[in-house]
Amino acid sequence: MKRKAASTTTTRANKPKQAPRTFDRDVLPTLLGYNIRRAQIVLWRDFARTVAEGEIRPGMFSALALVRANPGIAQVELGNELGIDKASMVALLDRLEEPGWILRTRSSEDRRRQGLTLTTDGERIYKSLKQEMLQHERKFAQLFSKQEREQLVSLLQRFLDVEV
Amino acid sequence: MKRKAASTTTTRANKPKQAPRTFDRDVLPTLLGYNIRRAQIVLWRDFARTVAEGEIRPGMFSALALVRANPGIAQVELGNELGIDKASMVALLDRLEEPGWILRTRSSEDRRRQGLTLTTDGERIYKSLKQEMLQHERKFAQLFSKQEREQLVSLLQRFLDVEV
Repeated sequence: MKRKAASTTTTRANKPKQAPRTFDRDVLPTLLGYNIRRAQIVLWRDFARTVAEGEIRPGMFSALALVRANPGIAQVELGNELGIDKASMVALLDRLEEPGWILRTRSSEDRRRQGLTLTTDGERIYKSLKQEMLQHERKFAQLFSKQEREQLVSLLQRFLDVEV
Repeated sequence: MKRKAASTTTTRANKPKQAPRTFDRDVLPTLLGYNIRRAQIVLWRDFARTVAEGEIRPGMFSALALVRANPGIAQVELGNELGIDKASMVALLDRLEEPGWILRTRSSEDRRRQGLTLTTDGERIYKSLKQEMLQHERKFAQLFSKQEREQLVSLLQRFLDVEV
């Protein structure tokens, strides 16, 4: 006999976190990569709902913050800092330049060097995004004590020590 | 006076992890999302170099592992377990079905339910990928003591408690 469809209907607030039966997860739960990716997926989804209604990506926020805090920063410095490659950097900067949030200017001393600065519109959007970003962050920060949060950040930063 | 270009030339093995001057990183280093994303970028890059020469994505490996360990698993169960939405699930399964690694079959009792199983080729590719995956994992696991690794995993799993 078929179960009523309604019995498996779920809402966003009532979504099952796990499938109902017992899973065999093989090696996955022991893998650092799997666990980081799962956390990242949750963060990404909440970010898309909380910050700029999904119109901007986390990397765009980080780039705005760094350009604002370091006016004239070179494209390559920003890319190193964000850990992203040149092609992705170009695409990222296009997305910030197109709505007029950043300006790219070439250094007169070294034509290969591009300096980046925020426009007035960029400054305004950054301030608004930052409020939403902190709201998004609080939702996750409250899962941890201050000590746990510091330890988590400290453990995560070790990944940056691996040469890739 | 211009510096020699050679002085800033870098190779892959000698890539600067940080820009040379002191950065103002604003709120970024305190944000859990920023730190997880940075770790994830490093993992992603190493995964692409170590596993299947970049031909497969981490989610494809996870899906193969879960389908193999749970033959007949429903598409929706797999999606819940991986934390990815329906549209992304469909795309993911297409990428596994196209080379003939998984089979989708419909349940005769419930036509909406698709059961997934690995093919012989899928089994073969999984075993080869798993070796490369463990090689990739070891590179990062060795950054931590056993206790630190367990704590990191345990802290990361808390993110899954947030309803998004």
